[in-house]
Amino acid sequence: MKKVTLQDIADKLGVSKFAVSRALSGKDGVSEETRLRIEGKALEMGYLRAADMIPAQKVIQIVFAEHDPVNSELWMQMQNGIQFEAAAAGYQLHTHWAPDAERAQAIALSGVGIILVGQHGTEIVSALGASGRAMVRLGWVLPLEQTDQVSGADHEAGNAVGQYLLARGHKRVGFVHGSRVLRGRMERLFGLREALLADDDASVCEIQFNADNPFAQSFLGLKAEGDMPTALFCSHDSLGVFVVSELHRLGYRVPEDVSVIGYGDFAAATQISPMLTTLRLPGGDMGIAALRLLLERMDADRRQLPPRRLMLVPELIERDSVADLR
Amino acid sequence: MKKVTLQDIADKLGVSKFAVSRALSGKDGVSEETRLRIEGKALEMGYLRAADMIPAQKVIQIVFAEHDPVNSELWMQMQNGIQFEAAAAGYQLHTHWAPDAERAQAIALSGVGIILVGQHGTEIVSALGASGRAMVRLGWVLPLEQTDQVSGADHEAGNAVGQYLLARGHKRVGFVHGSRVLRGRMERLFGLREALLADDDASVCEIQFNADNPFAQSFLGLKAEGDMPTALFCSHDSLGVFVVSELHRLGYRVPEDVSVIGYGDFAAATQISPMLTTLRLPGGDMGIAALRLLLERMDADRRQLPPRRLMLVPELIERDSVADLR
Repeated sequence: MKKVTLQDIADKLGVSKFAVSRALSGKDGVSEETRLRIEGKALEMGYLRAADMIPAQKVIQIVFAEHDPVNSELWMQMQNGIQFEAAAAGYQLHTHWAPDAERAQAIALSGVGIILVGQHGTEIVSALGASGRAMVRLGWVLPLEQTDQVSGADHEAGNAVGQYLLARGHKRVGFVHGSRVLRGRMERLFGLREALLADDDASVCEIQFNADNPFAQSFLGLKAEGDMPTALFCSHDSLGVFVVSELHRLGYRVPEDVSVIGYGDFAAATQISPMLTTLRLPGGDMGIAALRLLLERMDADRRQLPPRRLMLVPELIERDSVADLR
Repeated sequence: MKKVTLQDIADKLGVSKFAVSRALSGKDGVSEETRLRIEGKALEMGYLRAADMIPAQKVIQIVFAEHDPVNSELWMQMQNGIQFEAAAAGYQLHTHWAPDAERAQAIALSGVGIILVGQHGTEIVSALGASGRAMVRLGWVLPLEQTDQVSGADHEAGNAVGQYLLARGHKRVGFVHGSRVLRGRMERLFGLREALLADDDASVCEIQFNADNPFAQSFLGLKAEGDMPTALFCSHDSLGVFVVSELHRLGYRVPEDVSVIGYGDFAAATQISPMLTTLRLPGGDMGIAALRLLLERMDADRRQLPPRRLMLVPELIERDSVADLR
């Protein structure tokens, strides 16, 4: 019997050999409908055996938002967590990057559940939702959005940092961030503010910087006004590292002159001197939690709960970047 | 063979017959240590058969805070949810009210897990925690507290109410509550404020009332200042019902003159005219969720996650108490 080739399948269906190749290797470039027709024909003609194919019921799709270097360490932790739990439950993970709405729906339909990582546009979220597949988001959601979500417990993390700094005699705390867009960072700022309300003499200032408004300028501006913070809570460890290096450049010692506290406990936190006191965000556990919520949502035998927001509590990691002023 | 009596057991142990009676009926009044001694002797003497006893590994303890009439409907929903899920998993529920620290620990030790409902003092929480038993709280926790917690998604509920009122032309919204102590109510206020920030002409006022400062006085005060809200978001349906009746008494029509929106979707919401538009808090599902978190925490074969905050998303229930001003 003559061996069946990609060209044979293409000829039978009236599509290009390229399309057949892309479809059977699971790559982009063919519609979901065409992919299904090609796979069906390949099975019929004996090019594929059923055993070669991963049934869609055993595939969970991870869809990442656009590449984000700042969050890549967290995302990789999350992916590892999802992988850990999925393997135990007998699921395969397929990963994808920021598709358009049409492609998003095709991805959704070729798996049994979706984990959406990062900030996606509403059209992508709607397209995924319209697939009817169970979905969990690792990233922020709209009020009353009908999707399960996993995040860090940002507000109480900010509050805990405030209490920690107050207990060490810091009364003037700067919150350093680059943008007011990211919801989790704002929650940490609100939590910090709330904690410092407990002390009449304590207050928070916001140091928001970008290319037009560099950190050094903002910080020296506060100093000129006699309003220099004794501690800076940075919205991300990478920002914390940058702030420490800028403070050093300006001639300040950390923590003797200014204390710095980070967020995340990413690799950068221990790659500078002094090593950063920070909060460890449990990225791997967030991935595990997301997969568990997804499996619960996919389980038709369980009573289904309303949309859930699951926040994991970070852990304070004390290192060398915060001074005790008492 | 002579039938063993309570007095026989009491004589053997040198304790009172009363203590034996209390211990074997599972009631208060004996220490946990005494109870264990009495149960052991009762088994040994044939007064109890092993089959009569519920093993502690099959008991989950619910500990309520002090009796709270305002929240009793929600607490009963939660208890029903816990009961539903516990029965399916083969656990018995024992319920208890506001114990002292010593009694709290004894309760904890006579079960395998604890669900703590309402606001408890730190000494009770510490005593329960010291038992080493898995614990989940239905009520607010301290920042970074090492306990799992289930609550409603209060902040986003407040935000959704704000968006809903803005979309109907309300620009001046009053948040009505009785105390600034309850954390969930403050979160709803913060969420409401955040939503109204989206419109430069919109704003929130706080109407906090109590015996010294009645609602009518506060409301008429705002009117005299030319600052009367067109809509009132009440922190609980029972407050909503009270506010509607007060507005009627003052000669205002609801919703023609003032709109009112409640929270909870408790029985009271449909027992007045007009029936209250409100948000339904999924109390039963919160109980189910709490039991699931507890079982996950008790499962030694599962990878354990950091402390979790699980919020369930309420649902907006539109009835007749909000006017569309557009």
